[in-house]
Amino acid sequence: MAGVTLAQIIARLGGELKGNEAIRIVRVAPLETAVAGDISFLSNPRYTKQLAETKASAVILKPQFAAGSPVACIITPQPYLYFAYLAQWLTPVDNAAPGIHHSATVETNIPASVSVGPGAWIGTGAKIGKNVQIGAGCTVGKGAEIGADSRLYPQVSIYAGCRIGLRAIIHSGAVIGSDGFGFAQEKDRSWVKIPQNGRVFIGDDVEIGANTTIDRGAMEDTIIENGVKLDNQIQVGHNVHIGAHTAMAGCVGIAGSAKIGRHCTVGGGVVILGHLKIGDDVNISAGTLVAKSILKPGNYTGTVPSLPHQDWLKNFAHLRHLDTMADKIRALESRLAQLEKKS
Amino acid sequence: MAGVTLAQIIARLGGELKGNEAIRIVRVAPLETAVAGDISFLSNPRYTKQLAETKASAVILKPQFAAGSPVACIITPQPYLYFAYLAQWLTPVDNAAPGIHHSATVETNIPASVSVGPGAWIGTGAKIGKNVQIGAGCTVGKGAEIGADSRLYPQVSIYAGCRIGLRAIIHSGAVIGSDGFGFAQEKDRSWVKIPQNGRVFIGDDVEIGANTTIDRGAMEDTIIENGVKLDNQIQVGHNVHIGAHTAMAGCVGIAGSAKIGRHCTVGGGVVILGHLKIGDDVNISAGTLVAKSILKPGNYTGTVPSLPHQDWLKNFAHLRHLDTMADKIRALESRLAQLEKKS
Amino acid sequence: MAGVTLAQIIARLGGELKGNEAIRIVRVAPLETAVAGDISFLSNPRYTKQLAETKASAVILKPQFAAGSPVACIITPQPYLYFAYLAQWLTPVDNAAPGIHHSATVETNIPASVSVGPGAWIGTGAKIGKNVQIGAGCTVGKGAEIGADSRLYPQVSIYAGCRIGLRAIIHSGAVIGSDGFGFAQEKDRSWVKIPQNGRVFIGDDVEIGANTTIDRGAMEDTIIENGVKLDNQIQVGHNVHIGAHTAMAGCVGIAGSAKIGRHCTVGGGVVILGHLKIGDDVNISAGTLVAKSILKPGNYTGTVPSLPHQDWLKNFAHLRHLDTMADKIRALESRLAQLEKKS
Repeated sequence: MAGVTLAQIIARLGGELKGNEAIRIVRVAPLETAVAGDISFLSNPRYTKQLAETKASAVILKPQFAAGSPVACIITPQPYLYFAYLAQWLTPVDNAAPGIHHSATVETNIPASVSVGPGAWIGTGAKIGKNVQIGAGCTVGKGAEIGADSRLYPQVSIYAGCRIGLRAIIHSGAVIGSDGFGFAQEKDRSWVKIPQNGRVFIGDDVEIGANTTIDRGAMEDTIIENGVKLDNQIQVGHNVHIGAHTAMAGCVGIAGSAKIGRHCTVGGGVVILGHLKIGDDVNISAGTLVAKSILKPGNYTGTVPSLPHQDWLKNFAHLRHLDTMADKIRALESRLAQLEKKS
Repeated sequence: MAGVTLAQIIARLGGELKGNEAIRIVRVAPLETAVAGDISFLSNPRYTKQLAETKASAVILKPQFAAGSPVACIITPQPYLYFAYLAQWLTPVDNAAPGIHHSATVETNIPASVSVGPGAWIGTGAKIGKNVQIGAGCTVGKGAEIGADSRLYPQVSIYAGCRIGLRAIIHSGAVIGSDGFGFAQEKDRSWVKIPQNGRVFIGDDVEIGANTTIDRGAMEDTIIENGVKLDNQIQVGHNVHIGAHTAMAGCVGIAGSAKIGRHCTVGGGVVILGHLKIGDDVNISAGTLVAKSILKPGNYTGTVPSLPHQDWLKNFAHLRHLDTMADKIRALESRLAQLEKKS
Repeated sequence: MAGVTLAQIIARLGGELKGNEAIRIVRVAPLETAVAGDISFLSNPRYTKQLAETKASAVILKPQFAAGSPVACIITPQPYLYFAYLAQWLTPVDNAAPGIHHSATVETNIPASVSVGPGAWIGTGAKIGKNVQIGAGCTVGKGAEIGADSRLYPQVSIYAGCRIGLRAIIHSGAVIGSDGFGFAQEKDRSWVKIPQNGRVFIGDDVEIGANTTIDRGAMEDTIIENGVKLDNQIQVGHNVHIGAHTAMAGCVGIAGSAKIGRHCTVGGGVVILGHLKIGDDVNISAGTLVAKSILKPGNYTGTVPSLPHQDWLKNFAHLRHLDTMADKIRALESRLAQLEKKS
C-alpha cells in the first residue's frame, strides 16, 4: 500500500497537525517498535519516555504531550479513539467473495452478495441479510436470521430460530442458541429436562468471541442488546439479558436469568450468579464472583491477593478461624473495659 | 397447534383440577407474561404476587396456593416437575429426517433410522444406534459408539473409541475424547507426552453442554455415569469419574483422576483439583475451589464477597497480614492476663 | 500385539533389570489394575502398598523400591519419564493415511504425505509441511503455515496468516488467531473496534488442548514458544507471550499483553491479568488470580479454602469487616499500653 499523507488523515478524521503534512503513513505500530512510515499513539502518560525515543513518522497524542514529540504529531483529545478509526482505515480487510461454495449446503434463498464458505450449512427458512459472510464449516439452523453486513468466521454454530442483528462479528467456535440448563428433579432424584423453547435475540453491532456460548431461553428469550462486545469463552445462560454497549472480557460465566445493565464492563473470569440484577454503569473487576445484585453504578471487586506459597499458607489458614478471632477481640474488649473501670 | 384441554392434561399427568376442564392450553409461559391459552406454574412462594395478577388460562401449583389462584389450577405436590413433563408434551420437537445427507461421509454401516447432517463424518467401525441424529459438521471417530435415540447438535467432535449411551443430548462444540493432559519431564525440563490410551465412557440419559470437553483417560477410562447433566464449557480431565445423576453448571473445571459421587450438584465456575474424592450428595456453591476431598454429604462453599472497590481495598488488604493480626491478638491476651493477675 | 521383552526394553531405553529378561510386555497399566503382560511404574512413595500387591509382569521404579517389588523390575532414577517413553513405544498410533478426502477443499499446494480429512478446508497461500494430518472439518485460513509432522484433530480453526511450528498437536475445537479484544470508546460510549492486525506465532513441539483459544495480536504478534503445553479451554489474549516449555492446566485465562516466562507451570482455572510480567520458573497454584507481576521464581497461591456452608457463612462474613477488626486491635493495644503504664 502506498499509504496516506498526514494531510489526508487530518482531512478525514480531524485533529490538529504539528509537522509536515506531506509525510506518508502506511501502518500503525507501537511507539517502541515503530519505524519510518508508521504512526503511533500516546494515550497513557506512562509511555512518555517511549515517545521521546520513537522512530515513528508521526504520533497521535493529547495537546499536553505535543511538545515532547520528536516527530510530527496529530493533536486530539482522544488519541486512542482517533487511532482506532485510523487503524480501521489503514488495515486491509480481507472480505470473502460473494457466492456459495460448491461444497456448502444452502436450503434457503439468500442474497447474491452473501458469501458462504466451504462445507457450511444454512437450514430451511433461514434469513440471511445482504453482504453477510458465512465462513467455512458454519452451521445456521432452520429459521435463524443473520442481519446484513455480518461476518461469521469458520465453524460458528447458530441454532434454529435465533436472530442476529446487523454488522455482527462472530468468531470461530461460538455457539448461539444451545439449550439452557434447566431440569426438574424426579422422586428418584433423576433429572427431567425442561424444554428450552425460547430463542436468542442479538442486537446490532455485536461482537462475539471464539468459543463463546449463548444459551437460548426457556419460555422467554435470551437477549443481547446493541453494541455488546463479548470476548472469548464466555458462557451466557438462558434468559440472560445484557444491556447495550456492555463489554465483557474472556471466560466470564453468567448464570440463567441474570439481568445486566447498559455500559457495564466485566473483567475476565467473573462469575455472575443466576437471577441477579446488575444495574447500568457497573464495572466488575476480573476474577470476582457476583453473588448479590448490584444496583448502584461503580466499581466492584471480590478477589484475594496471590502470595508466595509459604506466606499464603501462613495467612490464609486464618480464614477458617476469623469468627474465633472476632470472638477473641470482643472478649479482650470486655476484659479490658473491666480493668479500666477498676484502675 | 390446537393445544390440549385441562382434562387431557390431568388424564395424562395426574394432579387435581380446580376449574373448567374444557379450557385449552397451547403453551407454557411464566406467570408474569402469560396470556390466554398459556399455562404457568408456581413453585417458589416468592412469586405469589405474580399468581394473583396472572393472565394465564391455568396454573400448576401446590395445594396451599390453590386458594390464591385467580384462574383454573392443577394441584400437585411438585409443580415444577409436573410443569417439566407438560412442557415436554407441549413443545414441538424438530427431529431431523432419517437419511444421510449427500455431503456427509459415512464409513460404517448405520441403521436406516439414523439422520446424518450435511458435512458430517462418521469413521470406520463406528456403531450408531437407532434413531440417532447427527447434526451438520459433526465428526465421529473410528470405532466410537453412540447409543440409540441420541442427538448430536451440529459440530460435535467424538474421538475414536469413545462410547456414549442411550438418549444422549450433546450440544455444539462439545469435544469427547481429546487427549488428557499428561507429561513427564525430561532432564532438560522439556515435556514428554504420556500417551492417552484410555477412552471416555458415557452412560445413558446424559446431556452435555455446548463447548464442554471431556478428555479420554490414560491407562484407564474417563467415566460419566447415567443421568449426569453437564452444562456448557465444562472441562473434565482424564480418568475423572462422575457418579450418576450429578449435575454441573457452566464453566466447571475438573482436574484429572477426581472421583465425584452420585447426586451431587456443582455450581458454575467451580474448580475441583485432581485425585480428589467427592462423596455422594455433595453440593458445591458456584465459584468454589475444591482443594481437599469432601466425603460427607452437605453444602460446601469457599468464595469471597464482592464489595465496592474502595471497601474491598480497605478490607482485603488485611488478608496479607492475618497472621500478624492473630499474633497481635495472642500478645494482647497475654499482656492482659498479666495485668488481670496484678489487679 | 505380541509385545516386547524386558530385554528389548532395556536395550532401547536403558535402566537396570532385576528379573527374567524374557518376560513379554504388551501394555502399560496402573499398579492396582495391572494383569499379566502389563508393565506399571512406581513414582510416588504413597503407592508402595500397591506395589506389594501388583499383578503386573514388571514394574519401573527407583533403586530404593526395588527390594519391595514382588515381580520383575526396571530400576531407573526417573520411573515416570521412563514410563512415558515406554508407553509411547507400546501405544499404537493411528495415523491418517496421506491424501486429500474428496469432500475437502484445498486451495493451495500441499505435499503428497499430507492427510486432509473429510470436509476440511485449506485456504489459498497456506503452507502445509510434510506428514501433516488435518482432521475432518478443520479450517485453515489463507496464508497460514503448519509445520511438518503436526496433527490437527477434527474441527480445529486456524485463522489467516497464523504460523504453527513442527510436531504440533492441536485438539478439536481449538481456535488459533481469532481477533483480540480491543476497543476504543466513542463519546456516546459505544465501542470502536481496534483492528487486530497481528498474528499468532507458535513454536515447535507445542500441544494445544480442546476448545483452547489463542487470539491474534494487535500491531504485534501473540507468541507461544517451543515446547509449550496448553490444556483444554485455555484463553490466551492478544499480544501475550508464553515462554518455552511452560505448561498450563485447563481453563486458564490470560489477558492481553501478559508476558509469561519459560518453564512455568500454571494450575487450572488461574486468571492472569493483562500487561503483567511473570518471570521464568514460576509455579502458580490452581484457582489463583494473578493481579501483579511475579518476577521471582517460586510457588504462588491466592485461593480461599472451601468449608461446610455454615462454617463458611460464620467465618467469611468477617471479610467485609477486616478493617474494623484491625482498628479494634490497634485500639486495644493503645488502651492496654495506657493501663500497663499506670500499673
